[in-house]
Amino acid sequence: MTRWDPNGATRLQVAAFELFDEQGFDKTTIAEIADRAGFTPRTYFNHFVDKREVLFTLAVPYQEAVVKGIIEGPNLASPLDEVVHAIQQACEELFEGRREAALRRRRVVDQHAELVERELSKMAALTTAIASALRERGTDRETAQLTAGAANLVQQEAFLAWAEPSETRQLRALLSDALKALRSTVR
Amino acid sequence: MTRWDPNGATRLQVAAFELFDEQGFDKTTIAEIADRAGFTPRTYFNHFVDKREVLFTLAVPYQEAVVKGIIEGPNLASPLDEVVHAIQQACEELFEGRREAALRRRRVVDQHAELVERELSKMAALTTAIASALRERGTDRETAQLTAGAANLVQQEAFLAWAEPSETRQLRALLSDALKALRSTVR
Repeated sequence: MTRWDPNGATRLQVAAFELFDEQGFDKTTIAEIADRAGFTPRTYFNHFVDKREVLFTLAVPYQEAVVKGIIEGPNLASPLDEVVHAIQQACEELFEGRREAALRRRRVVDQHAELVERELSKMAALTTAIASALRERGTDRETAQLTAGAANLVQQEAFLAWAEPSETRQLRALLSDALKALRSTVR
Repeated sequence: MTRWDPNGATRLQVAAFELFDEQGFDKTTIAEIADRAGFTPRTYFNHFVDKREVLFTLAVPYQEAVVKGIIEGPNLASPLDEVVHAIQQACEELFEGRREAALRRRRVVDQHAELVERELSKMAALTTAIASALRERGTDRETAQLTAGAANLVQQEAFLAWAEPSETRQLRALLSDALKALRSTVR
């Protein structure tokens, strides 16, 4: 296994989320994560700068995918429909079929105030990026800001539903349902 | 001036926001803040634990006022109308007529990543508190969560408009307008 293994990051993530969930974030060492994934700690540091980063590494490709989807996506009934469509595609690309890992990650983040704070910062950055992408498409400032915020609510609600043990629907359907629920709430 | 002066906290706040805005948050000392307000540093520490706290001291009474307004407020057309009504009352109580201080505070917070993070945490806490208050009124979990998130968007948008130098309307009107804008965006 060389340091260029393209699946290395994913294997390290899966191992990290398992260990964090089993024995706690604080008690897990980088050596243990690397070992469970079949790597040396050096390989870990080729992918992530520290122990926290493995939890947030999808934030950048996710944001990029959402922004690309908004800028290049089809014209739909409203900017909010366009953003939710872009989120659905990004989720399909990055999260669908990885529910177990996502749930483990959620449990770990929710238990640490400083990880929750970092998560809030990432969500705020995503909301800002969505609003900028909409501005590029010609949406006015206020509509762009409110649409980005509303899309963020839809996304949070869908991920919350996805985390329910009894939930069997895919993220795409959960996002559509959350959008319907927001529309009925705000009406 | 004794340590029990009920206006002490407000005078210290006004002095702190002025100094932070004039010479920067990092360069301002607690001794300078106390001096400008006509107090000793000891009086400052009777009100606030550190230099940051003076910026966030209204978060608790504001959250309490909003929650009280939701629980004791009138039945309106929807939970979102009820929450925005409670926010309007809390804003009138705590912020109306204090626009200059609020704008100074905003400029300081926006320039420091760690203050922005703390602000995001306070907003997340407020959203959670609003959702809990709605649950107490009998609103289902999903509607309570989405309503609280939507109310937070309305509030952010209204405060953003309030910060425009040319803006002359009161917060109450800006909140009503932001609610209308959200409705038209989400429709």
